[in-house]
Amino acid sequence: MTQSDRQDRQASQDVAVIVGGGPGISSSCARLFARSGMRVAIAARNPDKPVLQNLEKTPGVRRYACDASQPAAVESLFQNVVRVLGPPTLVVHNIDGRVPEIFRKAITEADPVVALATLRNSAFSAFLVGQQAARLMLENTPNANGTKGTIIFTNASAALKGFPLSGAFAMACHAKAGLAQSMARELMPQGIHIANVPIDAAIGWKQEDGTRAHRLAGVAVDDNMADPDCIAEAYLQLHRQHRSTWAFEVVLRPWVEKW
Amino acid sequence: MTQSDRQDRQASQDVAVIVGGGPGISSSCARLFARSGMRVAIAARNPDKPVLQNLEKTPGVRRYACDASQPAAVESLFQNVVRVLGPPTLVVHNIDGRVPEIFRKAITEADPVVALATLRNSAFSAFLVGQQAARLMLENTPNANGTKGTIIFTNASAALKGFPLSGAFAMACHAKAGLAQSMARELMPQGIHIANVPIDAAIGWKQEDGTRAHRLAGVAVDDNMADPDCIAEAYLQLHRQHRSTWAFEVVLRPWVEKW
Amino acid sequence: MTQSDRQDRQASQDVAVIVGGGPGISSSCARLFARSGMRVAIAARNPDKPVLQNLEKTPGVRRYACDASQPAAVESLFQNVVRVLGPPTLVVHNIDGRVPEIFRKAITEADPVVALATLRNSAFSAFLVGQQAARLMLENTPNANGTKGTIIFTNASAALKGFPLSGAFAMACHAKAGLAQSMARELMPQGIHIANVPIDAAIGWKQEDGTRAHRLAGVAVDDNMADPDCIAEAYLQLHRQHRSTWAFEVVLRPWVEKW
Amino acid sequence: MTQSDRQDRQASQDVAVIVGGGPGISSSCARLFARSGMRVAIAARNPDKPVLQNLEKTPGVRRYACDASQPAAVESLFQNVVRVLGPPTLVVHNIDGRVPEIFRKAITEADPVVALATLRNSAFSAFLVGQQAARLMLENTPNANGTKGTIIFTNASAALKGFPLSGAFAMACHAKAGLAQSMARELMPQGIHIANVPIDAAIGWKQEDGTRAHRLAGVAVDDNMADPDCIAEAYLQLHRQHRSTWAFEVVLRPWVEKW
Repeated sequence: MTQSDRQDRQASQDVAVIVGGGPGISSSCARLFARSGMRVAIAARNPDKPVLQNLEKTPGVRRYACDASQPAAVESLFQNVVRVLGPPTLVVHNIDGRVPEIFRKAITEADPVVALATLRNSAFSAFLVGQQAARLMLENTPNANGTKGTIIFTNASAALKGFPLSGAFAMACHAKAGLAQSMARELMPQGIHIANVPIDAAIGWKQEDGTRAHRLAGVAVDDNMADPDCIAEAYLQLHRQHRSTWAFEVVLRPWVEKW
Repeated sequence: MTQSDRQDRQASQDVAVIVGGGPGISSSCARLFARSGMRVAIAARNPDKPVLQNLEKTPGVRRYACDASQPAAVESLFQNVVRVLGPPTLVVHNIDGRVPEIFRKAITEADPVVALATLRNSAFSAFLVGQQAARLMLENTPNANGTKGTIIFTNASAALKGFPLSGAFAMACHAKAGLAQSMARELMPQGIHIANVPIDAAIGWKQEDGTRAHRLAGVAVDDNMADPDCIAEAYLQLHRQHRSTWAFEVVLRPWVEKW
Repeated sequence: MTQSDRQDRQASQDVAVIVGGGPGISSSCARLFARSGMRVAIAARNPDKPVLQNLEKTPGVRRYACDASQPAAVESLFQNVVRVLGPPTLVVHNIDGRVPEIFRKAITEADPVVALATLRNSAFSAFLVGQQAARLMLENTPNANGTKGTIIFTNASAALKGFPLSGAFAMACHAKAGLAQSMARELMPQGIHIANVPIDAAIGWKQEDGTRAHRLAGVAVDDNMADPDCIAEAYLQLHRQHRSTWAFEVVLRPWVEKW
Repeated sequence: MTQSDRQDRQASQDVAVIVGGGPGISSSCARLFARSGMRVAIAARNPDKPVLQNLEKTPGVRRYACDASQPAAVESLFQNVVRVLGPPTLVVHNIDGRVPEIFRKAITEADPVVALATLRNSAFSAFLVGQQAARLMLENTPNANGTKGTIIFTNASAALKGFPLSGAFAMACHAKAGLAQSMARELMPQGIHIANVPIDAAIGWKQEDGTRAHRLAGVAVDDNMADPDCIAEAYLQLHRQHRSTWAFEVVLRPWVEKW
């Protein structure tokens, strides 16, 4: 019986919480985790957007409302999940807080109010989600791989390199990476697997008609865009790693990307 | 005439702004910069604390009140400096936002309100100070080394490595490093020297009686503590580098420090 | 049909070459790759050591003699593999060159002859193996994931951090990492997946009697040692990644390891 | 009396050894160190080339023959220096081993013989020079800054990032960085300051007629080339740092360089 077989059998006991509800990574995760037998909660500020309504048709997926930059809202989300689905074993924080108002904008022109909102929505929400997840996971019994739970922070290449014209975004992504690293050193010896996964790519997801789409309408999806289904698969592999060999940071990057 | 000679003569035209007003690095910078002929502004939330009152007795040093986490306060600080001392050519952001409430505290126990305040006081204030400094410096004429101005972010080893039990501090320090890197890539080609200087050490400053002191009363200053006078000297050297050979990141670390 | 299913079917066409023939990672890779349907070549300076003789009993595994620090020997190995098994699609370089003579030895005491031999056996052999692998793989047809081949360099934590008392080992590991990075930037856009995998752990492999063993006799295998079967599984996952989302560097580390 | 004043007076006791004898950084270091009152040895494979003959006219500078890739030659160099000038307090390793045969060449095309020679000439010679320097410096009495000696490794941006088409050079530069880091962790607590200084730039030195020149004839020196006089000044500042605040790694980069 391979590690994967072992895990597939146990997966029915897994409860996944995905914070952030876009059509890319979050949706791919929700579908793959559910297909692997997990009970899946997907949370977004507005849970009524069509993407989430659609996702909920997948057996095992439930949607939740949560403004992840608010301490009380995040606490309440996790309490609801515990009550309805059980204590989480896999949590994905998938909010990057990127907004057009500060992206590709000179530091001299960036609006401080938007910069602070970016920090709150991305890095601070990661802190809140990570904190709630850690509190609950520490109470879990280790699974067959010795893991009490896995917390994955989706990140961007701006976590690795501060690019020009995006100071506030660089702050938020670096902050999230720093948080993940601190949590990894603190919680891995307590049985919680922490991962920081910078995606060094644009995301181009598959639509129902088989064509691929990008966040910005009109942007053609090409060979340099990451397929979020592959990202979800990498997350599942991270969750299934035995604690003798955990990866903390994995940068996923298309073959033709410059770096 | 060496580069240093050249600079000493020009230093009388230099205007330095130091944001953060403690007895360690900020005070050492204020004294050294003034002694080198600069006009020096030192800003703190409470400018009436004895340290700053004392510093103002140094010829060339003036103290200013500024809550650096408030956009309007930072803008007003820089406008006052320009009016009284002239446009800044050297700006040091020297606030790390470390507070006892979140330091050496498990992620599960850290107060979110304090975590967010740390991000604001440290990283967001760096954004505000960097933004105002950049706006003014871009208007400067390059000096003999080709530099329109130098912006230095004092940082901590938590900018390089997320330590356990300090998630919020790791976020803030990483965020500041990400900001600095983004600003460096954006502004260096426009003639502004940006530096991120993680101090991988406790600070032990010299007191008037010749003994050394540390932030926490009762902590003995030993050979493993950094002398802030040496840090100030490193900052002055950074400011005086020719733009053909700028250093962006310099980690200063005592000889006996483990890393 | 998932990505894994797709790959399992194709795996019979995969030809793996493992350079380095110890009882840990190399053996685990040979067994897992063969079990996944690959034809496997395992090469060591002395192919007659019991470990390799034993491995050859696994269906699909063949052993080869190769001093990987010799250009002609490496070229000849790959020619033999192509002739007998076919062109390689997965190559693992698994030699770290660590020898007791220079490990935990002051820089002032290390024997230069041994230091140079370490560079040759580890880093230079990686160059030779990588070069031969790249030449052959560039001729391959991309598989269903768009991959012409995968080259994995097993590395150590000394690739990430130069530890005291191990200057020559730090050189060799850093060199291997630099090579891997250069090859990644050069060959990934040509369809070859390059990975550098520092194992931040001692290795403790399972013996036939179920107990675990370590390279040094008498060292007890504890919870902080990596299971090479898990490392082999991570390598297989790397080989199976779709080229839209390749990982270049993955550090594998036990949960209780300090870093 | 500032730290610089203090040091200038002591500089007459300083003995500098520069290994590598080109017209750029080595020559600038020799001139600046001699002008600062040091006794300077400059060593090159061929000490009779015009650059070194010329340098020897500078008071305080002596040239030595040394093939730094040969253990016996390096040992002999340092013994000669000790006998003639005294024990070294500042050693600069300034050989990057870059040769046209492997630079900008596909990994599939690079000649293994040249690759190995690059490793030997650059990284292994750094090991030999560092080892001899360390042995001697450990016997020194600390100077006023607490420093027994400073060993500086000139490096290239390939130490930070493995660029395509330069696998062997990436290996050599990474190896040198790994060595420097290991030596820093080992020797700094023993009073020897180790520095790794990647120069992320082409070098354009000043010629006697005031124009600037580059290693490759016909390459125009522009604003993006580093002035080696400024690099030498940075090295002198590193040597003069107090041990309470040593910098280990300093990347020097022109203002307009992309990174």
